[in-house]
Amino acid sequence: MKQTSLCPRLQKSMDIIGKRWTGLIIYQLLQGPQRFGAIEASLPLSGRLLSERLKDLEQEGIVRREVFPETPVRIQYSLTEKGKALESVIRDLERWSRDWIVAESNSST
Amino acid sequence: MKQTSLCPRLQKSMDIIGKRWTGLIIYQLLQGPQRFGAIEASLPLSGRLLSERLKDLEQEGIVRREVFPETPVRIQYSLTEKGKALESVIRDLERWSRDWIVAESNSST
Repeated sequence: MKQTSLCPRLQKSMDIIGKRWTGLIIYQLLQGPQRFGAIEASLPLSGRLLSERLKDLEQEGIVRREVFPETPVRIQYSLTEKGKALESVIRDLERWSRDWIVAESNSST
Repeated sequence: MKQTSLCPRLQKSMDIIGKRWTGLIIYQLLQGPQRFGAIEASLPLSGRLLSERLKDLEQEGIVRREVFPETPVRIQYSLTEKGKALESVIRDLERWSRDWIVAESNSST
């Protein structure tokens, strides 16, 4: 690693957000608490990878996992305060996409 | 690929920004036009990888590469309008980092 003038905190947050799927998982959770199955249905990634990413986000303190002892047991994911604080970043990026990215001919619009 | 309700444009912009180093290169170029060597000195990645990322960003229309026929020839990189439009996203992320990411004990602060 070379010396860098960049603040290591910005570098770390780019690493977190920049990881493939992470941003889209947070985007999905901005709608409110959700079960694993609902997040899975909304995103084009495998359940295994989604589970891995959710664990990473939990470790970073961005996502909260709650278990409700019902029958059958309900497991719910939501954003923590730290996660919710990312909303403006994601909404800004959404606005940028609308203004600058050409829509692809894709059935999933 | 599963069907997804997410706008493919947001997905595409997350893919662009989320690629490792891309965000930091844009962050660096927010300071103004720069030569390759200056960008290289500011970031902890190899010259080869930097050159690859700059080519990607040029193809996406985010970075402009200009050649000035001086002696020696000067090659300068800058942000296009599309690239400059990312400033608020990056600044928001910077703010979030300051508020939520614990600084690591790192000599490059």
